[in-house]
Amino acid sequence: MHVKIYDTTLRDGSQSEHISFSVEDKLRIAEKLDRLGIHYIEGGWPGSNPKDIDFFKRIRDVRLKNAKIVAFGSTRRASLSVEEDKNIKSLLDADTPTVCIFGKSWDLHVRDALNISLEENLKLIEDSVSYLKSRGREVIYDAEHFFDAYKANPDYAVDTLKVAERAGADTIVLCDTNGGALAYEVRDIINSVKTQIKTPLGIHAHNDSDMAVANSIIAVRMGVRHVQGTMNGYGERCGNANLCSIIPNIKLKLKIDCITDEQLKQLTEASRYVSEIANLSPQNNLPFVGSSAFAHKGGIHVSAVQKNPLTYEHIEPDTVGNTRRVLVSELAGRSNMLVKAKEYGYDLDKNSKKVQEILARLKDLESQGYQFEGAEASFELLMRRSFGRAKKFFDLEGFRVIVGTRENKLISEATVKVVVDGKKEHTAAEGNGPVNALDNAFRKALEKFYPEIKDTYLTDYKVRVLDEKEGTAARVRVLIQSSDDRSSWGTVGVSENIIEASWLALADSYEYKLMKVMKENV
Amino acid sequence: MHVKIYDTTLRDGSQSEHISFSVEDKLRIAEKLDRLGIHYIEGGWPGSNPKDIDFFKRIRDVRLKNAKIVAFGSTRRASLSVEEDKNIKSLLDADTPTVCIFGKSWDLHVRDALNISLEENLKLIEDSVSYLKSRGREVIYDAEHFFDAYKANPDYAVDTLKVAERAGADTIVLCDTNGGALAYEVRDIINSVKTQIKTPLGIHAHNDSDMAVANSIIAVRMGVRHVQGTMNGYGERCGNANLCSIIPNIKLKLKIDCITDEQLKQLTEASRYVSEIANLSPQNNLPFVGSSAFAHKGGIHVSAVQKNPLTYEHIEPDTVGNTRRVLVSELAGRSNMLVKAKEYGYDLDKNSKKVQEILARLKDLESQGYQFEGAEASFELLMRRSFGRAKKFFDLEGFRVIVGTRENKLISEATVKVVVDGKKEHTAAEGNGPVNALDNAFRKALEKFYPEIKDTYLTDYKVRVLDEKEGTAARVRVLIQSSDDRSSWGTVGVSENIIEASWLALADSYEYKLMKVMKENV
Repeated sequence: MHVKIYDTTLRDGSQSEHISFSVEDKLRIAEKLDRLGIHYIEGGWPGSNPKDIDFFKRIRDVRLKNAKIVAFGSTRRASLSVEEDKNIKSLLDADTPTVCIFGKSWDLHVRDALNISLEENLKLIEDSVSYLKSRGREVIYDAEHFFDAYKANPDYAVDTLKVAERAGADTIVLCDTNGGALAYEVRDIINSVKTQIKTPLGIHAHNDSDMAVANSIIAVRMGVRHVQGTMNGYGERCGNANLCSIIPNIKLKLKIDCITDEQLKQLTEASRYVSEIANLSPQNNLPFVGSSAFAHKGGIHVSAVQKNPLTYEHIEPDTVGNTRRVLVSELAGRSNMLVKAKEYGYDLDKNSKKVQEILARLKDLESQGYQFEGAEASFELLMRRSFGRAKKFFDLEGFRVIVGTRENKLISEATVKVVVDGKKEHTAAEGNGPVNALDNAFRKALEKFYPEIKDTYLTDYKVRVLDEKEGTAARVRVLIQSSDDRSSWGTVGVSENIIEASWLALADSYEYKLMKVMKENV
Repeated sequence: MHVKIYDTTLRDGSQSEHISFSVEDKLRIAEKLDRLGIHYIEGGWPGSNPKDIDFFKRIRDVRLKNAKIVAFGSTRRASLSVEEDKNIKSLLDADTPTVCIFGKSWDLHVRDALNISLEENLKLIEDSVSYLKSRGREVIYDAEHFFDAYKANPDYAVDTLKVAERAGADTIVLCDTNGGALAYEVRDIINSVKTQIKTPLGIHAHNDSDMAVANSIIAVRMGVRHVQGTMNGYGERCGNANLCSIIPNIKLKLKIDCITDEQLKQLTEASRYVSEIANLSPQNNLPFVGSSAFAHKGGIHVSAVQKNPLTYEHIEPDTVGNTRRVLVSELAGRSNMLVKAKEYGYDLDKNSKKVQEILARLKDLESQGYQFEGAEASFELLMRRSFGRAKKFFDLEGFRVIVGTRENKLISEATVKVVVDGKKEHTAAEGNGPVNALDNAFRKALEKFYPEIKDTYLTDYKVRVLDEKEGTAARVRVLIQSSDDRSSWGTVGVSENIIEASWLALADSYEYKLMKVMKENV
């Protein structure tokens, strides 16, 4: 009685219209999913995307605790033997313990898309599954379009599963590829399949009828023990089944085991992390993990919730790492803040004046567009400053950045005036762009006083435009990730001016580094 | 066999965290919903919101073709007789043909929120319904928290419905107020209620478990003929059941009548209209009505959809007034490109040299980080340029952007040198940031020659850092969305320098606008 969660954010999720992951993004998400307790992480389709080959190479060096990495592909081509098929070969080359291949179950597709006979398609499935099994892989077989296939031609649809079963597939996944199946159809069709297939079944749903989560949960209730989906429901068209809804429904409503209680508490943070990496605003009304999911506005609701949360909340927000918010009197963040403070060595009384003060400051910054998820170094600095424990390592007297064409070339140049212990340093540097030039000039000035920053480098730079509708005059949030030999930290800056926002995040990054060095030397 | 659609966007929908409708907004939405064929429009809660009283006054002057206006309220207070109750009085004063009142069915709520006996609550319901009936109103009774109530105390929950029935309620609506009910629970509970209640039943679902639409559709399949929900699923926390998904599911999947085929074709436009009035960006991945709902990215999908749309689409987009879109992206191949070319009026042979040439150019641009999803205007320009059909409206001789501190203030200034028909224009402008300054200077220069760009404004500005691990020296992709009175278009620019990337996207935007004007004048 344990449901395996299979995440395909990195493959099917990346088909979202507005998502384009780099290999670095994928590695970071994979690590996050592993910590969340996801059982399978589908990394990509090595046969169709060269970037994915790189991912499979690099993920080998990452030590995962919970997850198996899965390479995705299709059954062999009709014109080739399975040994000759490049797609199958690249699946094996990905060198993963588990592979997932999809095959056709819908007669319409066999005829109109593959242009082969129904018989030949069965052969494709059988060959591909048994070949991959013979190479020692765990094989998950995705029956593409299974529900449409079953509605069109139930015998043939089930026949495709039977050959996959005979060929040794470890799991057979019923896919609602077009997302058109309704909940009661899913129930009836699974009921029928269960009598004919003994291999463990899985479900893979899409949200085109707004039922992907319901269909997945109904499948689990009927005994399916393998669920495929994506974080935040990312995916082509209307998206895949949303794991951030499926996991808590399985754990808290069906009361079936999948990830641990402790892992479940990380769900909200994981959801927001993935949306940050995808560079998409988190959707506030997402069930369970959205920032509005436990936000109460109506007066009746607010007072009732204060008496007994059960009156207007279907679950305890804390179980999924989310928080209740009362929109009239903002209480959010306090317990979070106390936990963080403890991490930095401050044991605070939640009713103390200091806590009120920090919360007020935090609220003010958030209303300006600051956000500290993914920028915990800036948050730690904020807290230290409010305790008067942040050393002032440098003052910035001024800077200037010039970007312009000079003899048909684009030049970026920055000048920076920094003061350390009363000594002024005025430097200039060029760069690939205005922020890079500013960073170069700033480092050059600081290194004179603090040679220890030399091993610091920026590993990630993200820009998010807030209130996008304001066009180029909107506020901008810059997130910077920095590293040295030992660790990695994130900082944030917000301004209407992208250069200033970058400057603020850069200044926090170097200040954090210097504070870290100072602590290490104590 | 006809399902009545009951819209509560104006009441429950306005509980959304980010929504605040004016009376004017509500009137406009009501007219739109009427045209869409909605049967009931819940206008507000006159007893709790003075703005709503104004709405009920003004809506009387609006001639509606299809919809009945409904006033919402609660059962009488325990301490007052029904005649004395102000809330009930304001319901009658709203002067609507139909009223909807909610009452408590959950024993927990009766005790913890109302603080009265279970018996007394039954009396509240009975008095309120029969009084409103005696005043000639059609009465819809909303059984708040019905599913939780039934799970806690089925006998009492059904008793509350029985008194409403006895008092003459025309419809009894089972509400999943906290959104915690799962699809199979809804089925089982309705099955039981059906044997005990003869009054027509309705359903009112919330989306906290990500199942509001599934729960509503299952209810309809079990014979419920009154469905409450909101446009785009707006509502408190995770929102109400989304009518934009429910209506097409009822019409196209269950094949039960509700609105006409012609009205259904207006659904997409109505959805976007309401989001405009609510001042919320339309959610692109909404089932049926989202701009991505029929957008295809993967090459395999695109070529299959061309052969037979059924292969990757669960319904014809046209039936709900939406359109198929083929996205141009790194995963897509030749067939996407040919479809796009056709949209722009080029009928190309897929094996022609021109197609090879454009594909090569596209591949080159994509390897630099270009991406044309959301930047279709840039793609059209690219295609026109490769056919020699793009007019050169202007040349840029040079620009310079300066951002720097001046007397403790941050100043952004840009200068631009533009040449049109041999005439040089050299201008300067300030802005909120470097890109805004550049845009201002550029417009100022161009407007001298092309006053028609005055009605163009930037509506959206997005920045994505590519290869983020390169830090501030990484490539940057800028996506700009521009609008004039008639349409909206997206352009893209890529560079290591964010200013240059922005410049490229801006230049494309103005070039596209000028091309559009030229075409309109032909």
